Amino acid sequence: MAKGKDEAAQLYAEAISIDGLNCSNWGREEVFRSLHNGGLTAINATIVFWESFQETLDNIANWLGWFEEYGDILTQVRTATDIHRAKTQDKVGIIFGWQNAAPIENDLKRLRLFHALGVRIIQITYNERNLLGNGCYERVDDGLSNFGQAAVREMNRLGILIDLSHVGDRTTLETIDLSEQPVAITHANARSFKDHPRNKTDEAIRRMTEKGGVIGANAFPTFLPREYESTLDDLIDSIDYLVEMVGIDHVGVGTDFCQSQPRAFFEGLFSQQGKIPPNPLPVPYPLNFPEGLETPDEFSNIARSLLERGYRAEDVKKVIGGNWLRLLSQVWQE
Amino acid sequence: MAKGKDEAAQLYAEAISIDGLNCSNWGREEVFRSLHNGGLTAINATIVFWESFQETLDNIANWLGWFEEYGDILTQVRTATDIHRAKTQDKVGIIFGWQNAAPIENDLKRLRLFHALGVRIIQITYNERNLLGNGCYERVDDGLSNFGQAAVREMNRLGILIDLSHVGDRTTLETIDLSEQPVAITHANARSFKDHPRNKTDEAIRRMTEKGGVIGANAFPTFLPREYESTLDDLIDSIDYLVEMVGIDHVGVGTDFCQSQPRAFFEGLFSQQGKIPPNPLPVPYPLNFPEGLETPDEFSNIARSLLERGYRAEDVKKVIGGNWLRLLSQVWQE
Repeated sequence: MAKGKDEAAQLYAEAISIDGLNCSNWGREEVFRSLHNGGLTAINATIVFWESFQETLDNIANWLGWFEEYGDILTQVRTATDIHRAKTQDKVGIIFGWQNAAPIENDLKRLRLFHALGVRIIQITYNERNLLGNGCYERVDDGLSNFGQAAVREMNRLGILIDLSHVGDRTTLETIDLSEQPVAITHANARSFKDHPRNKTDEAIRRMTEKGGVIGANAFPTFLPREYESTLDDLIDSIDYLVEMVGIDHVGVGTDFCQSQPRAFFEGLFSQQGKIPPNPLPVPYPLNFPEGLETPDEFSNIARSLLERGYRAEDVKKVIGGNWLRLLSQVWQE
Repeated sequence: MAKGKDEAAQLYAEAISIDGLNCSNWGREEVFRSLHNGGLTAINATIVFWESFQETLDNIANWLGWFEEYGDILTQVRTATDIHRAKTQDKVGIIFGWQNAAPIENDLKRLRLFHALGVRIIQITYNERNLLGNGCYERVDDGLSNFGQAAVREMNRLGILIDLSHVGDRTTLETIDLSEQPVAITHANARSFKDHPRNKTDEAIRRMTEKGGVIGANAFPTFLPREYESTLDDLIDSIDYLVEMVGIDHVGVGTDFCQSQPRAFFEGLFSQQGKIPPNPLPVPYPLNFPEGLETPDEFSNIARSLLERGYRAEDVKKVIGGNWLRLLSQVWQE
């Protein structure tokens, strides 16, 4: 056990670790410190759920300030080279990611603007309909709009990774088929593993990974079989399940951490179009993440648990970051 | 004369040529071609007069498209190295410049955002008052506001060149004194050369250049002694006058070209806060620039005329771009 622990620590120290999704309360010192203490090389940091064009730009301006203020532990990531640089410098690489394409509003050319500012991962829709397509909680999903098809092509052209985690089933499949680049499901489990509309169908997961994509197993307890009783082992079960389904090269982790978020954050998440809060809140508050993976500083526990389950070191490295790195390198077109 | 012509052509082909201000009708092919045909290495391209935060960002998104569409002849400049690269690649370097700090509205952190997008030259105010200070046509000028002082410090810190061309006299002097970096008057003549409120006082020009700044002699005919009868010789007279006043190391050119601009553009320029058009328009329309320098493709005529006036080759190079390059290198902090 002591040997196993040493092996895990050494593997983790050498590896590129990437969290496929984190939507914590940015700007708070304990949040940034937790990422750094957890030894994360890079994260897909959600900077948009429901924000407008202007709010998103002001968010980015805030981030530029945080990159200065926390320059000893954070660095912006725009390229795969930046991820390697973050590892060498012992900093956490921040990838600007959106969970909703809404900030471009009805103007496709704004994708160029946000790409210039470093936005590198965009989810087509968040839970409900937007101008591009339909979300996983929409009453209907008639697929991508004309504008959504054009947006997929433009994200392909610019080198922005498309995320389908919260996207409706038909919009998901249409996007996989239309995209000329591999796409991702950054943070969801299989619906056949835990039946929930936010988890993805086997068809979507298979078709997405056949085209070179990656799915990030999700630790948000609602989407695990034992829900609010889950521990890290339940996330590892989801990884096992996905690896069995699509192979070791197509599975990563997207924790969905919501560290230090107030109740209002969760009300916003589940609000209709981000405006009308749900009553009651559909998740407990405060929301505890699985024991053993409650905050980013415990991310290395994933590597340890996978080793204990008998995963080979090189396969552990793929799951904790290597697969994300390969996908990002390909899509970002360096 | 043939020999002189050859000498001028050779000098110009070798030199870094920079226009300290051009506010033409961007996006039109003849405008971009004229810059390239004129052999300009870089220009301070005005992308803001009265635009809001959002309009400015959409303007930048348009520019990102033009950089793709005209990638054979245009390239964005963010650093002095980019200017040298533009010269080597025979492209026109586009420096994003604002004639009005208004797009940051009341939020200083937006300077970081626009710096990240490549904005490298910002004029404190345009003609009238804004939240930072007062313009040259304001009825009063009580200097920089608290916000304006903070903006000067932040532009110093980020490495954005401050422009004072359209700024009121008191705000001009206060900015020169406060700034820890040299500042510029990118496009104005001496008021003692041609009495006009848009031209600058000897005190401002001297104090600005003593701190390392540069003034760009302006070809906009209103600000030359013979106004709408001016030829290139009148601009050369202004250069002579300024060189006599502050020395060869502190004088450049800022043509103020308004190529292909419609009448509505000039109405906007002179509108109160960009909203209430003047009646009558205070300049003729169409507005002809001085004979011999009517469009950017004639920019090399400045070099030829300076040689004919007896300027040494190395001094001609300073005036047509070298002095701007030195100042930009210093302020942009590479």
